Amino acid sequence: MAGRELTSIRSPRVKAARRLAKRAFRRRERRFLAEGPQAVREALQIRGGLVELFTTAEAESRHPELVQAAEQAGVPVLRVSGEVMAELAQTVTPQGLLAVCGFIDAPLESALESGPKLVTVLAHVRDPGNAGTVLRTADAAGSETVVFTDASVDPYNGKCVRASAGSLFHLPVVTGPRFDVLIPELKRAGLRVLAADGAGKRTLDEALDDGTLAEPTAWVFGNEAWGLPEEILQHVDDVIRVPIYGHAESLNLATAAAVCLYASARAQRV
Amino acid sequence: MAGRELTSIRSPRVKAARRLAKRAFRRRERRFLAEGPQAVREALQIRGGLVELFTTAEAESRHPELVQAAEQAGVPVLRVSGEVMAELAQTVTPQGLLAVCGFIDAPLESALESGPKLVTVLAHVRDPGNAGTVLRTADAAGSETVVFTDASVDPYNGKCVRASAGSLFHLPVVTGPRFDVLIPELKRAGLRVLAADGAGKRTLDEALDDGTLAEPTAWVFGNEAWGLPEEILQHVDDVIRVPIYGHAESLNLATAAAVCLYASARAQRV
Repeated sequence: MAGRELTSIRSPRVKAARRLAKRAFRRRERRFLAEGPQAVREALQIRGGLVELFTTAEAESRHPELVQAAEQAGVPVLRVSGEVMAELAQTVTPQGLLAVCGFIDAPLESALESGPKLVTVLAHVRDPGNAGTVLRTADAAGSETVVFTDASVDPYNGKCVRASAGSLFHLPVVTGPRFDVLIPELKRAGLRVLAADGAGKRTLDEALDDGTLAEPTAWVFGNEAWGLPEEILQHVDDVIRVPIYGHAESLNLATAAAVCLYASARAQRV
Repeated sequence: MAGRELTSIRSPRVKAARRLAKRAFRRRERRFLAEGPQAVREALQIRGGLVELFTTAEAESRHPELVQAAEQAGVPVLRVSGEVMAELAQTVTPQGLLAVCGFIDAPLESALESGPKLVTVLAHVRDPGNAGTVLRTADAAGSETVVFTDASVDPYNGKCVRASAGSLFHLPVVTGPRFDVLIPELKRAGLRVLAADGAGKRTLDEALDDGTLAEPTAWVFGNEAWGLPEEILQHVDDVIRVPIYGHAESLNLATAAAVCLYASARAQRV
């Protein structure tokens, strides 16, 4: 049981959690928010993942096993009124479970030391929903790590966490390296660094045909609107474009990433 | 020149256009709204595509060629104040050009009579943003026609039009067929009907390896949350799942569609 129900949004614990909607507070506390039963389940799998759990009475009766698991792991469980949950949650229809999680990102060196074959890099990706979707897709395609460069959105942004559908918890996420530091590290780890860009001279089909994609690869995806800056394009091993067979001008970021990552996943397994 | 500027949202022309934000009015008038210079350009390419054009003075000075082309095509151009445009437009930052377009969907028979090799079917897709993104991806992958079944969202919904990024104007879109009528028609047109579903017994890789995807194909994509209903899965030729190589539970609809459509596009060209 979670004890007395907190009914005031001015409760210090509630206020401290609410502040985590802002990046500056997330950074300071090294904590973030994740909503819903799936997030709680995932966070429980990781040491230091689940730090505090807010529930409503209703959610507790729907997911008694999660509340019990949190308590057994020594995680403070705070029961709050529906009104307080609505204030805490960032969604229109909160699911009654809100996890306060510890930062789980990995240092670049440790993410690379296992010799990954497929790495995903988000450079200058600004929309958190897109970033989360690419993270989910990278996980599905078997990418072993996802890197958010310093110019990209915060992976702990609530929208990104939601769009990742749990994948934030599944694989090492590296945050904040500068691109000029990152590229040499990726190459040193034996990865061919490919940028996905509509301006690429070679198509994905060509890279499949000549065996490029069968090799260990780090895919770099750029900004939704303007792609990748010249200083990045110049330092990668190759710039590849997804072929447009019809009349569309371009693909959106998450779609292009899906096509590239799955092409690599298959090429590396054939 | 567009004549006197309309400054009242109560002007009958403005009111008539505003009503098109609702599906019932779109259906009655067989007209829809599309925002921005790209949409105007695309609509001008299609006979009966552009029916009326609302502009602001600022947009007119930024895109004089579009306003001129509309006038030369005999399309009424109405200049409105920024305030009226803000009321008409469905986006937060309206681009100052709003096209009233005539419905451009094609009958199923005419879309199939040219013998398409790649057809995209949206069955029970309810989110207009997702539907528009799949439409854009289908266009990029060279799908020759996109079918929205009667249980799917309206392709003329403003969010769908925006997410399609012009693709709504690029290829024949068929709206409204019932699924039990559609499947036999697709098969009669020589298409193998494949449903994309996480519950599929065969993976996309298997369908690539055995040559299935090289054949003329109609891909059926289902609802964002619950996929495709049993009565559809039973009547298609095969149910295919995108393999999950990592730990993600599933892919989102638009991502799965991108992977399937591009796999077909490549298989049909190798």
